[in-house]
Amino acid sequence: MSNIRHALSVKRADDFAQWYQEVISAADLAEESGVRGCMVIKPWGYGIWERIQRLLDQRIKDTGHDNCYFPIFIPLSNFEREAEHVEGFAKEMAVVTHHRLIADGEGGLIPDPEAKLEEPLVVRPTSETIIGDAMARWVQSWRDLPLLTNQWANVVRWEMRTRMFLRTSEFLWQEGHTAHENMADAKEHTMRMLEVYRACAEEDLAMPVIAGEKPENERFPGAVETWSIEAMMQDGKALQAGTSHYLGTNFAEASGIRYQDREGTQQLCHTTSWGVSTRMVGGVIMTHGDDDGLRVPPTIAPWQVVILPMLRDKPEDDALIEYCEKLRASLASAEALGEKVRVLLDKKPGKAAAKRWDWVRKGVPVIIEVGGRDMENGVVSLLRRDRLWNTENGKTAFETPSAETAGQAIPALLEEIQASLFDEARDRRDANITRGIDTLDALTEFYNSNGRYPGWVEVQWAKPTGAALDTVVEKLKELKLTIRNVPMQTGAVDGACIFTGEPAVERIYVARAY
Amino acid sequence: MSNIRHALSVKRADDFAQWYQEVISAADLAEESGVRGCMVIKPWGYGIWERIQRLLDQRIKDTGHDNCYFPIFIPLSNFEREAEHVEGFAKEMAVVTHHRLIADGEGGLIPDPEAKLEEPLVVRPTSETIIGDAMARWVQSWRDLPLLTNQWANVVRWEMRTRMFLRTSEFLWQEGHTAHENMADAKEHTMRMLEVYRACAEEDLAMPVIAGEKPENERFPGAVETWSIEAMMQDGKALQAGTSHYLGTNFAEASGIRYQDREGTQQLCHTTSWGVSTRMVGGVIMTHGDDDGLRVPPTIAPWQVVILPMLRDKPEDDALIEYCEKLRASLASAEALGEKVRVLLDKKPGKAAAKRWDWVRKGVPVIIEVGGRDMENGVVSLLRRDRLWNTENGKTAFETPSAETAGQAIPALLEEIQASLFDEARDRRDANITRGIDTLDALTEFYNSNGRYPGWVEVQWAKPTGAALDTVVEKLKELKLTIRNVPMQTGAVDGACIFTGEPAVERIYVARAY
Repeated sequence: MSNIRHALSVKRADDFAQWYQEVISAADLAEESGVRGCMVIKPWGYGIWERIQRLLDQRIKDTGHDNCYFPIFIPLSNFEREAEHVEGFAKEMAVVTHHRLIADGEGGLIPDPEAKLEEPLVVRPTSETIIGDAMARWVQSWRDLPLLTNQWANVVRWEMRTRMFLRTSEFLWQEGHTAHENMADAKEHTMRMLEVYRACAEEDLAMPVIAGEKPENERFPGAVETWSIEAMMQDGKALQAGTSHYLGTNFAEASGIRYQDREGTQQLCHTTSWGVSTRMVGGVIMTHGDDDGLRVPPTIAPWQVVILPMLRDKPEDDALIEYCEKLRASLASAEALGEKVRVLLDKKPGKAAAKRWDWVRKGVPVIIEVGGRDMENGVVSLLRRDRLWNTENGKTAFETPSAETAGQAIPALLEEIQASLFDEARDRRDANITRGIDTLDALTEFYNSNGRYPGWVEVQWAKPTGAALDTVVEKLKELKLTIRNVPMQTGAVDGACIFTGEPAVERIYVARAY
Repeated sequence: MSNIRHALSVKRADDFAQWYQEVISAADLAEESGVRGCMVIKPWGYGIWERIQRLLDQRIKDTGHDNCYFPIFIPLSNFEREAEHVEGFAKEMAVVTHHRLIADGEGGLIPDPEAKLEEPLVVRPTSETIIGDAMARWVQSWRDLPLLTNQWANVVRWEMRTRMFLRTSEFLWQEGHTAHENMADAKEHTMRMLEVYRACAEEDLAMPVIAGEKPENERFPGAVETWSIEAMMQDGKALQAGTSHYLGTNFAEASGIRYQDREGTQQLCHTTSWGVSTRMVGGVIMTHGDDDGLRVPPTIAPWQVVILPMLRDKPEDDALIEYCEKLRASLASAEALGEKVRVLLDKKPGKAAAKRWDWVRKGVPVIIEVGGRDMENGVVSLLRRDRLWNTENGKTAFETPSAETAGQAIPALLEEIQASLFDEARDRRDANITRGIDTLDALTEFYNSNGRYPGWVEVQWAKPTGAALDTVVEKLKELKLTIRNVPMQTGAVDGACIFTGEPAVERIYVARAY
């Protein structure tokens, strides 16, 4: 394999962080904007997000939610109501204090002192408090419940250290907010949406995840329970890819979300909230990217197949384009993965090889090249992005089926690629989870003895709380580890807590994380 | 007709502004948020916007544009570059000056003086300057042109007097931004997008519009030409429903968007921008609403057909629901207006009549009620929202076709309703445009003699500029009129300018406007 010349200059194994940046640039996904902490999402990156958005939106609608839109500005006083929520967010918000600019007399502009707001407005970091205000208006009786809302929006959390898609000051997300009659209904809904996220991650993004509850110290500010889906990236680190919160009556109390129950008594609602963001795109990159760039799972690929005619600026080009257009039209009318195949005939000027490698780096699942000789022979040159190389000779693994065969085979091929990317990621994840470590010493030894960070460890613990939990968190921090979650699906408990020695009550994952 | 008891308390003819507010509330489209100038868009209102968005997005993609996303924050210095642009926007922007809150020691929060931004950030009122910066990075050679981008985003323009959907401090829109090699290409594209807006308004929203160029005094700040589509509302006022701007090289110069031409010379790009917003929803309300609430054109209706089983909380309900579900499934698999029919079986608890009137006020195009007796007779009770009343007896105009006939007829019925709403609006508009007024005195007389504002007037003018135009604008202002646009399609010029008496060069529309 050593004779393969990969398309990127940095390999995953050599410098994963640098490789991540190179994929984003080489696949033309996003770039720095020049505005602190904010990125520009470019067409291919935004196209992937649009696909995720459309599929997830359907899942959210299928579970009974309506989309709404709430103001981007939240009065400062809203944040003063829910103590933990303030504590969690007040430190990193963009604050609007003026509503006009004036000339400074030296050719520049300054905020107009005459236009200072009486009450500053916060650019939403999340919308629990403002949506809570609306819910308090909308809910009167048990008949109005459950109230199931969702919004697609931009939010801002001032971040000191940013990384594209993973942590940016402004990001795009959906935030669901629901109100229920009681704890049982609200908790059930919290879990329903966690399952929606699991399905979206695994089925649409081909990104295997572990669903479970976050420990107390990792809860959303103001939540009673926070659940997450956690994915393992190729460097073995964890990525929290989505969270679902049971908020108890905390926000209902702060916003006054009350209803008259079936007996005519006023009750506080139990609320939930849940969100996933453009961070998902970072997860796709670090789950499926390779040393040649990105590999986009077919379900979320803006284009699933790209046809590249090898044009020569000659009169014969017309016939070649016609031949390719016929193939494009036939593919576009076929279905794969439950939708029409998304196929692009790329006629842009440029050398065929250069264009091929652009699409390889972008990670389009299937590339079809057609030259004059291919056309004469009635064949096409087909390249699977997920099996790019012939490892025996170090060359690209082109196949040359007849155009007709290619056309017929592609829907099944796309489904195979989708499944194969998932399997590959799941197998890698499973191979990088270690079990059977029973003491803190053994854990320390495990993480320190390795030259390379060795992935996740599943350990048993007694679920300490408060100060005892803080001690555990501190110990893990020394190893640069965090508790990811308490997985829903795992083996029975059969030993002692590795932190306290007390009888264990559950299993948890510890890992380094993004 | 006097015996009809309409569903709203205010009639259009009595108080149009009040009627508009009542429709928004009765159709559950939106509400005040409590945050100055910002509204909450509720599910039915947002659902209409989502439909507009999806259809327009496809039109924008079909004309070769890619969606991107750019930062919400724009450094203040960006606004200092393009003089007219500053002048136009600097007066009404939200300015972020701090990035953290701290406790004020009295239980409240204040912007942290330690976290003052060195350079304030402006919440985007429009994105020419920040997208210009990106274009300057992306464009090197003529091969990179045209560069065709679009973004769906929220923008903020601080407004003193707001009205839901029509003028709010925060609103949702799309903004297209393109760069071209020369004036001819850029102007052609400006007109192409104007035509996209015309088609969207007329074909999707069933809202007839007049496309034309805005006069100099109404240009977008920094534009060389601004074109608009103007719709007539039912009170005869004009609504500017979308604009397309040819920006010349003004923004290219300010942001440094240059390319190497075919001869190797550095050239400035010619750019365009164009946008439509949630204001469109206001246009739909004032074009199609009636004294019973909203009427949503089928193409943009979130639900086109609602089936209401007349449930009685009895065991027979099951059979009724099954009967309705069969009809729902059969309709949902049919196509109308190029898409699957969107049909809801509304099983929510509540009295059938109350639910019917809720859907009437929301303006769902077709309501189907099914009671036990209907089921026995194999029929349904069908109500067209656009022909709600039997004017002879003042009752609702229910028809009772067989379930099978109804199922088969509905796709064509939806298409008929779509066409009929457009025709009705176009006929009303054409009846309220007056031609043949040749002098300013006659114009004054026309607008003053009428008790009621009489709609638009088409006049001829000499296209004065500068101070001469200012004088015209002032004269019109006294009549509360503005110049709407210079229509592309109109009769030849054959007289004198009604303002200056000079030979006229073109025809313009004058009207009161939103």
